[in-house]
Formats: sequence, C-alpha cells, structure tokens
Amino acid sequence: MLYETKDIQNLDRISRLKLINSICGIRGVHLIGTISPNKICNLAIFSSVVHIGSNPPLLGFVTRPNSEVKRDTYNNILETSYYTINSIEKNMVDRAHQTSGKYDSIISEFDACNIDSNFLNDFPAPFVTESKIKLGLKFVEKLDIKKNNTRLILGKIQLIEIPYSFDKLSNDDFIGVLGLNTYYEAKKIKDLEYVRIHPKI
Amino acid sequence: MLYETKDIQNLDRISRLKLINSICGIRGVHLIGTISPNKICNLAIFSSVVHIGSNPPLLGFVTRPNSEVKRDTYNNILETSYYTINSIEKNMVDRAHQTSGKYDSIISEFDACNIDSNFLNDFPAPFVTESKIKLGLKFVEKLDIKKNNTRLILGKIQLIEIPYSFDKLSNDDFIGVLGLNTYYEAKKIKDLEYVRIHPKI
Repeated sequence: MLYETKDIQNLDRISRLKLINSICGIRGVHLIGTISPNKICNLAIFSSVVHIGSNPPLLGFVTRPNSEVKRDTYNNILETSYYTINSIEKNMVDRAHQTSGKYDSIISEFDACNIDSNFLNDFPAPFVTESKIKLGLKFVEKLDIKKNNTRLILGKIQLIEIPYSFDKLSNDDFIGVLGLNTYYEAKKIKDLEYVRIHPKI
Repeated sequence: MLYETKDIQNLDRISRLKLINSICGIRGVHLIGTISPNKICNLAIFSSVVHIGSNPPLLGFVTRPNSEVKRDTYNNILETSYYTINSIEKNMVDRAHQTSGKYDSIISEFDACNIDSNFLNDFPAPFVTESKIKLGLKFVEKLDIKKNNTRLILGKIQLIEIPYSFDKLSNDDFIGVLGLNTYYEAKKIKDLEYVRIHPKI
C-alpha cells in the first residue's frame, strides 16, 4: 500500500498514530525515574531512548508535547537535574505499561503500579529495584523541536549498575515495543564483525 | 557491577563503546538512502531512528561526529533535502551491515553491498527494493548536539510503501540490534490495552 502526504493527513488521529508508531519498527522501552523537589517519586515508560555517544556517555529521549501529557518527568528533570533509566524485565511488562496512565502529580507511579524503588550510591533520583540495568543520568541539555513542540532531553550517564560485566549483556536483558502497546522479546539472528575500512568488493 | 563516572572514563575506548552501546538495549536498525547532487546513490545503516511525532509525521536520527566518519548521508540530505528510511529484512542483515564500511563517496553502497535500489512515485531519493517498509522523508531541521559534535536530523514522512495495511505490521517485519554488531528478530510477549486516564488503583 502506498500512502502519500495527503493520505497520511486524511487518516483519523488514532489510525495515523498507529501507522507512524508502527512503521519505525522495534524500539527499546525503558522506565524513567525522577523525584520532585518535594520528594515525590515519579516513574514513566518511554520508547524513545536513543544512543547519542559513548565519550562522553550520552543518551537522549524525546518528551511528548507538554500540552498532551502531564509534565512530571520533564519538570522534575529540569528542577533537580537527575533521572534514572531502567530496563523493563519480562515479568514487569504489565506494571511498567501501567505507568503510562495519567496519575496526579502527588501520586508516585512506583506505588500506584506496584514497582519497588531504591536509591543507589547517593544518586539523587530513584531506581527501579527489579530492573537488571540501572542507569543514573545528569541532565545536560534540552533541544527544542519546534515543529511539534517536543524536546530531546540529553543526559550524561554517571552511574551504571548491571548484574554482570557488560560483555555478558544479551537479548535476555532487554525487551522492545512495536507500535504503542505490543511488547517483544528479542531472539538472536547473528553476530557480525566490525566492517573494515574500505572493504574489498 | 557498579560503574561510576570515573570507572566509565577509565575504560579503554573499545570497552566504553561496547558498554554504552549495549546498556541502552535493543534498538531498531534501518538503511538510509540518499543521492548526491551528481547522482551517486548512497546507503548507510543507522540504529538511531527515533519517533518524534505522528502529526505531522516526524522521525529523527542521530548522525555520528563528522570527524569520525565520512559525511555522505549528512551532506546529501543537506544538499538535496530528501532521504529514505528502509526496513532491513532478515535475509539482508549481512549485506546491510556491510554498508557500515567506509566506501569512497564515488562508490554507491547499493552496488558495493549488492542491494538493489529503486525510485518510487517520483520521490527524489533511492529506496531499497527488497525492504518491506519504505519511507520517503523531506529534511525539516537539524539540531546540533554540541556536547559531542553529533546532530539530530529531523524529517517529515512524505511517502510510505508497505506490503499490506499498517494494522497488519508485526514483529516479522522488523529486526533490531544490540550493541554494535548483534542482530535480533522479535518474538511477541503480549499486546496490552491503552491505559485509561486516571486508572483505578
């Protein structure tokens, strides 16, 4: 099927949402933990974490427009400068997905969704206890995407807790999402070698 | 294992690259097609395509620092304004991975890596013939990430070709990558419902 600009525009809102969220493929999915200045912990699910660079170690994620959703994650990061990115384990999928509901700012999604929090190594934002991969980040910069009132939030990784050395990380440690609501585990196809400069053709 | 800032800094370059590329989890992986002003087609693999919004339909991807890699994709997009994002099928993984080599600008990776190109509907950039999901984008904006000399390239989707209606898209249509060189297919865990506003706790 071929969709041109006018066909995409003419779709109803939900169909367009499903189309555009599906055609970009499998995305990693994470829980982002923050704490407000008055010490209410917040947790929200995101499927837009993107690798920006290794040195310095930078990750980004995209916030939705403030007009559409509550701003707890965004506000807390701007006010406190710290946040955590936590992996979602297979047995947490339902509870992690529940964090996408719109809870009042005075309610902690950790409590509302039955997800335990913990603090690590004096890092100022809360981690998800049962996540195998826990990352502590310090806010670096926000880049405004004016075209649709979203923002790329950049953070520097300051703390990593993983259950074993990083070269043991595998598909069993991560899940993904396709579209808005369908969760996947990953099954290895193959390892390939780094491609040499100017490969022989 | 716990890594603090100094532990991450003290890793050798390759170990840090592997650690930071692995801990962000499964990422979608795509082939980006462009054409130079003098009509040489270019194709390169990216694992940083990120959904920015559905209305207007916007996708982003992150370029690596220009100092590290050749700039064909980036230069072609700035000069021509158009590019394509193409899905990688399971039987294309080896050839798609080969596009990460550093070929001279006068060589088309389509030819060098044995990947057929085609043009669709008068769209000015080349698509990957065998990709099930073909997206044609017009460049919108680049956001400079000064911290590490990378850029978020934003584009608006103008053309979508998929083999069936979007509600039939599934895990069989997409693969992912973990770290730098390990490719995965996706196996469904479950579908979940959209979470209602103010869920009952």
